[in-house]
Amino acid sequence: MRPATRPHESSPDVHTDRPALLFDLDGTLLDSVYQHVIAWKEALESAGIPLSIWRIHRRIGMSGGLFLRALVRETGRDLSAAEADRLRVLHEEGYRRRISEVRPLPGAEALLELLSASGVPWAIATSSSEATAKTSLSLLEIPPGVPVITRDQVQYAKPNPDLFLAAAEALGRPIGESFVVGDSVWDLLAAQRAGALGIGVLSGGYGREELETAGAYRVYDDPQDLLEHIDELGIRTHS
Amino acid sequence: MRPATRPHESSPDVHTDRPALLFDLDGTLLDSVYQHVIAWKEALESAGIPLSIWRIHRRIGMSGGLFLRALVRETGRDLSAAEADRLRVLHEEGYRRRISEVRPLPGAEALLELLSASGVPWAIATSSSEATAKTSLSLLEIPPGVPVITRDQVQYAKPNPDLFLAAAEALGRPIGESFVVGDSVWDLLAAQRAGALGIGVLSGGYGREELETAGAYRVYDDPQDLLEHIDELGIRTHS
Repeated sequence: MRPATRPHESSPDVHTDRPALLFDLDGTLLDSVYQHVIAWKEALESAGIPLSIWRIHRRIGMSGGLFLRALVRETGRDLSAAEADRLRVLHEEGYRRRISEVRPLPGAEALLELLSASGVPWAIATSSSEATAKTSLSLLEIPPGVPVITRDQVQYAKPNPDLFLAAAEALGRPIGESFVVGDSVWDLLAAQRAGALGIGVLSGGYGREELETAGAYRVYDDPQDLLEHIDELGIRTHS
Repeated sequence: MRPATRPHESSPDVHTDRPALLFDLDGTLLDSVYQHVIAWKEALESAGIPLSIWRIHRRIGMSGGLFLRALVRETGRDLSAAEADRLRVLHEEGYRRRISEVRPLPGAEALLELLSASGVPWAIATSSSEATAKTSLSLLEIPPGVPVITRDQVQYAKPNPDLFLAAAEALGRPIGESFVVGDSVWDLLAAQRAGALGIGVLSGGYGREELETAGAYRVYDDPQDLLEHIDELGIRTHS
């Protein structure tokens, strides 16, 4: 083994200053979690299923199938596949009716612009269906070429790792050199399962301690706070 | 000092099987936190003050005055006393418009009935104004004689201890023998400042770790979960 006398001669394939960022969407880039929560509450009530709002909040961001299965267990009520499908449709309609209330989170647009301008690869990975994601994404400017992976493109949504694995693959980047940025414990569990580093944001309503326990290396308030501390991820932006 | 050879001869004034329970209202007995959050969001937007929803959520349950002061600091926007008053009125109106969506939390009514039937003294202490509390309380059956302490009856709301001190006094019980039951860190800080024991519930949307850190001796899911574990507070109900 040769002593490291020539530190500049590292492998040309490793660009540790350009890790990929894989973003969750709702609660991470958009202030949309509470609209999703209220839309689910409405859908469930219309089907005669009462569920406290905080319990719905804690499931947001996970796969709709898992969400409904957990709900069946907690309420002790049986749910046919057709009923589950109908609830998903009602939720999507209810969310779409509220889209005019939804805003990008502070700093979201500036953060994405900075990453693009600095050549840092990034992608979006959401448990939402293609249709719901499209409604949400209309509030952000996503440059052509940025991968957007939705529930329809993988077998399992979060907390399975599939969405983030697909996002890294679409970027042509190793998942192990990628950061997953999310607001929910489901994002962070999926990040751990994928072998990516997890970054939490508080903007979806989870507490700092929960996100840290779920594996977040750092927790920021929101995209603006992450933007102001982007150096803590070892990302060198030229701004 | 005499050795304690006669354990049954304790002071007749101490009834350790009947500690008082002092309940917060929103998020603790009523599933109303998200309606308050959305009503504040709407009021603030109408005044041209954008604020992420999670930041509003984290202030619910604290005094409206402190809430607005914190908000001014965070948004860097100045707010006159008249504007603050107008925002409070808008929030109250917005909440009242949503009252038909608000439900008692699971177990809330059964818990209160059991306490009354068992002779356990209890009271309600809320940072809401008299008017807003009245709207909320219409959803619960509060027997005559149960003290309801609102923001209008004390100098400072939570996280100051005044509301809980007044509630214990109205019951004629020492605050040190009282449990404070609340969903927010403001309740638990007020409990600590008052010298009462704090019990957290998750039904307002805060995480377990936060409530424990803020001083909760135990954390339950909601009133139903507390009801099922009431023996853990040393309360002997005769049911």
